[in-house]
Amino acid sequence: MTRIALDAMGGDRAPQETVKGAVDAAAGGVEVVLVGDEARLRPLLRESGADLPVVHAPEQIGMGEDVSRAIRDKKRASISVAARLVAEGEADGLVSAGSTGATVAAGAILVGRAPGVSRPALAAVFPLGHPTVVLDIGANLEVRPEHLVQFGVMGSVLAQVYLGVEDPAVGLLNVGEEEGKGRPLEKESFALLAAAPLRFAGNVEGRDLGRGAADVFVTDGFSGNVLLKGVEGTVSAMSRLVLAALSEDDPALQAALPVVLPRLAVLRESLDPDTHGGAHLLGTRGTVVVAHGSASRVAVANALRLASAGAERGLVARVAEGLARV
Amino acid sequence: MTRIALDAMGGDRAPQETVKGAVDAAAGGVEVVLVGDEARLRPLLRESGADLPVVHAPEQIGMGEDVSRAIRDKKRASISVAARLVAEGEADGLVSAGSTGATVAAGAILVGRAPGVSRPALAAVFPLGHPTVVLDIGANLEVRPEHLVQFGVMGSVLAQVYLGVEDPAVGLLNVGEEEGKGRPLEKESFALLAAAPLRFAGNVEGRDLGRGAADVFVTDGFSGNVLLKGVEGTVSAMSRLVLAALSEDDPALQAALPVVLPRLAVLRESLDPDTHGGAHLLGTRGTVVVAHGSASRVAVANALRLASAGAERGLVARVAEGLARV
Repeated sequence: MTRIALDAMGGDRAPQETVKGAVDAAAGGVEVVLVGDEARLRPLLRESGADLPVVHAPEQIGMGEDVSRAIRDKKRASISVAARLVAEGEADGLVSAGSTGATVAAGAILVGRAPGVSRPALAAVFPLGHPTVVLDIGANLEVRPEHLVQFGVMGSVLAQVYLGVEDPAVGLLNVGEEEGKGRPLEKESFALLAAAPLRFAGNVEGRDLGRGAADVFVTDGFSGNVLLKGVEGTVSAMSRLVLAALSEDDPALQAALPVVLPRLAVLRESLDPDTHGGAHLLGTRGTVVVAHGSASRVAVANALRLASAGAERGLVARVAEGLARV
Repeated sequence: MTRIALDAMGGDRAPQETVKGAVDAAAGGVEVVLVGDEARLRPLLRESGADLPVVHAPEQIGMGEDVSRAIRDKKRASISVAARLVAEGEADGLVSAGSTGATVAAGAILVGRAPGVSRPALAAVFPLGHPTVVLDIGANLEVRPEHLVQFGVMGSVLAQVYLGVEDPAVGLLNVGEEEGKGRPLEKESFALLAAAPLRFAGNVEGRDLGRGAADVFVTDGFSGNVLLKGVEGTVSAMSRLVLAALSEDDPALQAALPVVLPRLAVLRESLDPDTHGGAHLLGTRGTVVVAHGSASRVAVANALRLASAGAERGLVARVAEGLARV
């Protein structure tokens, strides 16, 4: 049994949706401890009829703040208190739907880096067709080639632990498939990745997403963030365009919609960030999951399940083992 | 009347599809000159029943070659000869579906940079909802802040000339909307763009594509390439997933498809790169359009029309005017 600390005050819809999500996850067997303003959390818990432990944390970190400073200064902020629970062994993992920057800083500074890790990295699973782990998606906007090798190892562990891929293939995100493409970063990383203890699949491009060219794409945090948001934007835009294409005032079309739209809704849901729970901060001494800022009850519960599964399957230890071989 | 030189040997489907595309464009009023191996082009022209001028160019630049060197050494390569026709005033513009690197090098080196341009940049129009010009998508993998300002000015001219937007809004592609986000490149560029003679809309993200947050997104060529290919990959993946979601063996669903699929096919076509002709190399002394490597007859014809329209509307002169104000 593993215990997950939830930053119950983080996110646009906190604390209402975070408490509900925690209650749902707890009902499904996840051991959750809520961290936040006790005076606000207790009544919500009473309403829900559930009894979950609460650790009081009266402060919050705002969206505009310098996060590294805020993490150090605001010792009673909910994200800081949750991270210290992990650092002190009171919890095995941490979930927050608050500011990504604050969660990354809390993970790196307060939970602390796992042995051998230079840079903790944010990894997301892209659910388009063949599921693909992409990292970094924003924790480190500029990186060196040796960081990309570590990202490859950490991403491989994530693909093993969560996607069940035995020997994941790692691709280097680039502007073309041929060796020799890219910036100096990609050219140097190519050689290092080819020599690293992982299955290197060479260069990959955004158009390979979901096609199984690789299970893991590694890149710097700027490019990964651009890719992630470009994919999200395209999924939203295409969903709108598909509905618009089917909204014509033609009786035959209108008659067809009741059988067509439910199928498209299922697809849309499978591509929804809420369904997937969130991004993983890899390379810290505890499982850290960053949920979407707009996370609903469902998304919070999924993020808690994800963190719990990561902790139970030894994600942190396996990342450390992997990096020890580099 | 403007005259466009077509690299008839460039592209996976050349010269068959390039000749057919040229014949179609010429039938629609575009003045085209074919550049390539006369012995191969003449019979194809005879087959098509059309009579277009041919300039003989027996060499080609292969995919693996160092393009800057090849452009200088292979003076009789089709792309080099086509570029020299523009440089010498024999043509107003150039279209190639061959190697993007070779076309960019031919544009920058042989056609030559327009007055005031530091770095010619590749611009694409993203057709998702609100059409958006994105540059650079791969000509300059690493750039300085002053280059992004030039890209903003050049992209604005493209949006005016092709999209009919009177006063285009220019966004800086970044990892968040707030000022202060990003790498040093974005932080420094933000201030320069805010002071530049263009309508600066602040930071934008990939998820803003198609939503009208800006008409032009500026970024370095690596990030722009990642965004472009991520969007292309997502459009393909979602098209496959939508068809799969509707392929179930349910009689009611099967009965609905004849009225639904044609609408989705129209949408798919509107998002197809072939429909849009290609990317523009901005900042050279002639209109240069890079068509997709897999360009079909339709795509080649569209690229020729695009180049012809750019030349007729004075794209090159207007870019130079815009840059003179920076």
